[in-house]
Amino acid sequence: MALACRHVLLSVFDYKTEKYVIAKNKKVGVLYRIIQLTILGYIVGWVFVTKKGYQDTEEAILSSVITKVKGVAFINTSSGSRFWGPEDYVIPQQGEAVFFITTNFIETPEQRLGYCAESIKVPDGHCRVNSDCPEGETVIAGHGVKSGRCLKKDSNSTGTCEIHGWCPVERSHKPKEPLLGKAENFTVYIKNFIRFPKFAFSKSNVLETANDTYLKRCLYDEVGHPYCPIFRLGDIVSRAGHNFQDMAVLGGAVGILIEWKCDLDKGYSQCHPQYSFTRLDASGPNSSMSSGYNFRYARHFKNPSGQSYRSLFKVYGIRFDIMVHGKAGRFSIIPTIINIGSGLALMGAGAFFCDMVLLYMMKNRTLYRERKFETDKNVNNNDKDLKAKEPNKQRSEFQQLTDLSPEN
Amino acid sequence: MALACRHVLLSVFDYKTEKYVIAKNKKVGVLYRIIQLTILGYIVGWVFVTKKGYQDTEEAILSSVITKVKGVAFINTSSGSRFWGPEDYVIPQQGEAVFFITTNFIETPEQRLGYCAESIKVPDGHCRVNSDCPEGETVIAGHGVKSGRCLKKDSNSTGTCEIHGWCPVERSHKPKEPLLGKAENFTVYIKNFIRFPKFAFSKSNVLETANDTYLKRCLYDEVGHPYCPIFRLGDIVSRAGHNFQDMAVLGGAVGILIEWKCDLDKGYSQCHPQYSFTRLDASGPNSSMSSGYNFRYARHFKNPSGQSYRSLFKVYGIRFDIMVHGKAGRFSIIPTIINIGSGLALMGAGAFFCDMVLLYMMKNRTLYRERKFETDKNVNNNDKDLKAKEPNKQRSEFQQLTDLSPEN
Amino acid sequence: MALACRHVLLSVFDYKTEKYVIAKNKKVGVLYRIIQLTILGYIVGWVFVTKKGYQDTEEAILSSVITKVKGVAFINTSSGSRFWGPEDYVIPQQGEAVFFITTNFIETPEQRLGYCAESIKVPDGHCRVNSDCPEGETVIAGHGVKSGRCLKKDSNSTGTCEIHGWCPVERSHKPKEPLLGKAENFTVYIKNFIRFPKFAFSKSNVLETANDTYLKRCLYDEVGHPYCPIFRLGDIVSRAGHNFQDMAVLGGAVGILIEWKCDLDKGYSQCHPQYSFTRLDASGPNSSMSSGYNFRYARHFKNPSGQSYRSLFKVYGIRFDIMVHGKAGRFSIIPTIINIGSGLALMGAGAFFCDMVLLYMMKNRTLYRERKFETDKNVNNNDKDLKAKEPNKQRSEFQQLTDLSPEN
Repeated sequence: MALACRHVLLSVFDYKTEKYVIAKNKKVGVLYRIIQLTILGYIVGWVFVTKKGYQDTEEAILSSVITKVKGVAFINTSSGSRFWGPEDYVIPQQGEAVFFITTNFIETPEQRLGYCAESIKVPDGHCRVNSDCPEGETVIAGHGVKSGRCLKKDSNSTGTCEIHGWCPVERSHKPKEPLLGKAENFTVYIKNFIRFPKFAFSKSNVLETANDTYLKRCLYDEVGHPYCPIFRLGDIVSRAGHNFQDMAVLGGAVGILIEWKCDLDKGYSQCHPQYSFTRLDASGPNSSMSSGYNFRYARHFKNPSGQSYRSLFKVYGIRFDIMVHGKAGRFSIIPTIINIGSGLALMGAGAFFCDMVLLYMMKNRTLYRERKFETDKNVNNNDKDLKAKEPNKQRSEFQQLTDLSPEN
Repeated sequence: MALACRHVLLSVFDYKTEKYVIAKNKKVGVLYRIIQLTILGYIVGWVFVTKKGYQDTEEAILSSVITKVKGVAFINTSSGSRFWGPEDYVIPQQGEAVFFITTNFIETPEQRLGYCAESIKVPDGHCRVNSDCPEGETVIAGHGVKSGRCLKKDSNSTGTCEIHGWCPVERSHKPKEPLLGKAENFTVYIKNFIRFPKFAFSKSNVLETANDTYLKRCLYDEVGHPYCPIFRLGDIVSRAGHNFQDMAVLGGAVGILIEWKCDLDKGYSQCHPQYSFTRLDASGPNSSMSSGYNFRYARHFKNPSGQSYRSLFKVYGIRFDIMVHGKAGRFSIIPTIINIGSGLALMGAGAFFCDMVLLYMMKNRTLYRERKFETDKNVNNNDKDLKAKEPNKQRSEFQQLTDLSPEN
Repeated sequence: MALACRHVLLSVFDYKTEKYVIAKNKKVGVLYRIIQLTILGYIVGWVFVTKKGYQDTEEAILSSVITKVKGVAFINTSSGSRFWGPEDYVIPQQGEAVFFITTNFIETPEQRLGYCAESIKVPDGHCRVNSDCPEGETVIAGHGVKSGRCLKKDSNSTGTCEIHGWCPVERSHKPKEPLLGKAENFTVYIKNFIRFPKFAFSKSNVLETANDTYLKRCLYDEVGHPYCPIFRLGDIVSRAGHNFQDMAVLGGAVGILIEWKCDLDKGYSQCHPQYSFTRLDASGPNSSMSSGYNFRYARHFKNPSGQSYRSLFKVYGIRFDIMVHGKAGRFSIIPTIINIGSGLALMGAGAFFCDMVLLYMMKNRTLYRERKFETDKNVNNNDKDLKAKEPNKQRSEFQQLTDLSPEN
């Protein structure tokens, strides 16, 4: 028992190596070397150097964006002249990643709750007689509830229902020119803080070396000032491939994409954001409804008697979405070994392919098959023989290619 | 030297192939073929066909969402009748991915800074004597600072402190019915632009083929109109498994999940969003505090003498969060080869397992072990012999299973 | 033909196993076992146990955040005393993931459109004579358009242009103390709903077992109350490594990072959020421009004659960004097999390395090379011989190491 254990223990440290047959077939040899070099070139050149397959990557980036728009414009409208600053045209004002710049608006001042005629452009408000306007029925896509009366210029024409709502109703006409076209010259200062939690790596897009004077005056330029985070709104829209003044009439949506590609093996200072710009709203020929960007808000007032009235604003403008994405990579042993391992397994597949070529397509294929595979044709006979002979002198069950028997 | 170099160079192109032993053991042979077919089926059927293991994937989707809510409601309250449009009940009004629809509210009009009694429902405001209300102390969870007086109906009862703040204080009662229950019929038009930066693939959820007429009238339906991005608010809540009118009393939060599963090998037009809906706020039996959704805002006014007053609104409503996620996949050589390589390595493990079965569990295992492993028992003797003989006629150091020596 | 087919079919189920040579070299044997144990330790200990390599992971987390700030403060300013509640100091009020707490402000009440002197601190507004202020020219970084007049105290000094805009202009002085320093004691209740779509796993950070009483009173503490989602603002800033009162003077930005690390193999209840805090805006010595956080908004009023006037607020404060990230993992067969496969391929590389050591560095290396590789030196002669002899008695083309010929 102890001897058996000792024998097993010692045999654990024997080294078993596979037996190889050398076939001096230069064609298959060269083919095999070519396959090996191709796989090596794929692993080193493509997987490791180009695709950085030795790195563990993270794409889930944490991002915080703070914006500040600067610029003022003086506007003359029918209701007087107005001076617009960021507190007026930026919505929301607190400087978030998604902000809207008013470029055009329709103001309906001093609306009061009362009775007035529905707008002629609302189909459900059309009527010929009073019964077309049932009292209490809400006008579909309209501005109030019907009061029961049909208001017409004369008895033969089509009129609109009298409604109870905020009067006078808003005149719905599509503007032709942007009132705040000067918004093209406004600037937005984008501060972006990012973090890759897997690598505990944080950075901001404002260079630590930038001083106040530079940041107060610079403007982003891809070639000259790639690290200045101040963008002129007109430049943003033109880099997205559109014209600011055209877009400003009915509004639109533009995306500012900030991309962080960080190879953390190269160090903290090598990680910089790239800015690109794209239009977000559909602008094809069939999409007149979905083009443009507008919404309404109201300012509420009360007169001395406590009665409410409001100014309704339908604002058109350009919405800017700042979208941050990125990928960080750092050397890690696991993806390295996975890629090396798959390369090694591929070498084995290459060897298998060359074996097939050697054993089934070469001139001496029968010969090579016989050399490679030791067969066992006499196992039944040899079993009986084995029991007869001494263990260390047993005849091989494998038929030797030179068949040598004691009788020979 | 040159001859040695030439010899090494030529030997580089020799082809070495492993030597195999064929054991005609049908049981292990069949077992090995079964293992091979299982691994092949796993690789082809599971990894490649089902899980698309040949694709490089990206889950970091860039998304921009623009919303527009439509619908009006007429409300009769104690403070008069009001006509509510999107500019009143949608907060914020600019159409973002996260928006709140007011379904209920408590209005406290015309609050002025002054002195009044704290609400009876504030525990820290209770008092019996003036000293219970130290001047200047802020009422915890209250509406102002204590003035030093305790206001009581009569001398024996418990009263509340007199406070300095916006008066009169808000009456805190839980509403029973939603004032804007008609919000169930409002519709929201969701425009979603997405981009997978790794594949430079962009798309919008509004079909390019959709024309204005269709988009003006359609409503989203999973079966009939899956590509119409206009949703009725009541449908959204019911698909999340809840009742709109119940939720509208105290408010809630609902998530609209937009999922983009894009197989980029199949083409641009095969990539469509799937919509699903879920409730976000806890609604279990223990969570009466955390159920509902409300906040306050104020409208400020000034009377002719310049004194400020305000109307405080406590609004309840349903908050809609549009959350976009997705996964894009495209054929790539690296994951393909990694999966093929791991399959090949698995074949090797299968062969090792069959070897173990053959060498340790079959009837002729001793025989198979002797055939498979060539041992080296005479290395010391054979070393001496080797030096004596000619190189091309040296005796094998491996003990032949037929022990043939010149003496035999 | 049928016989050939039957022969091929039967040979498919023959089991081929590689032939091995046992070299009783304990040094290489021990080296090989060490290499095997190292690889096994790497696979089991590092890849599977530490890095959970058997799991499929997802990092794309869907998140919805609802916040509610509580706290009130009484402020005495030059324009009167004011009582501030969340409806006043939280911007925006609807409880989103990004919210701003006002800690300081400059109020310019009752601005009217008119003519007044530009601020002395605006460089472009300086003038000596009227021609320095061309009519209609917008003041760069100013408050209006120049009217054509230069307003000076006396004829020799430098004055500022008269501008047409909102008058009086805002006095630009940097505040020294935070008016709402008491905001340090305000609390924010953070409700976070997350979902991992790949695993269809959803959870909220509010424990189902939490009852109202606990949630009304608790405060987050890393050790004592890690599952209480109510945070004191001063604690958040101090955990980010800064002082609230210092930050409150000119404002700043703080990130609240919520991390969800979920091992879904361990069950639903094992998945909890971890909170950490960091400052987001640069605060280095060179960044006086980018430090702080402020913006402006206006409240609009109308006097009885319908003339507009406004109160301009420049608010400073702390912006809180709640950023949610996470990683979920669940057992999956594909990454398990990929990692096992790469380990097996590595074993093969280890065997190759040990082969190199055995064949080129050991004492008996020539011997081992001859034993391992069967060469083919007589292939041309043996081709002729083969055609002459019977198939089952063909001489081996491999030169036997004991060269036994019929002549011997």
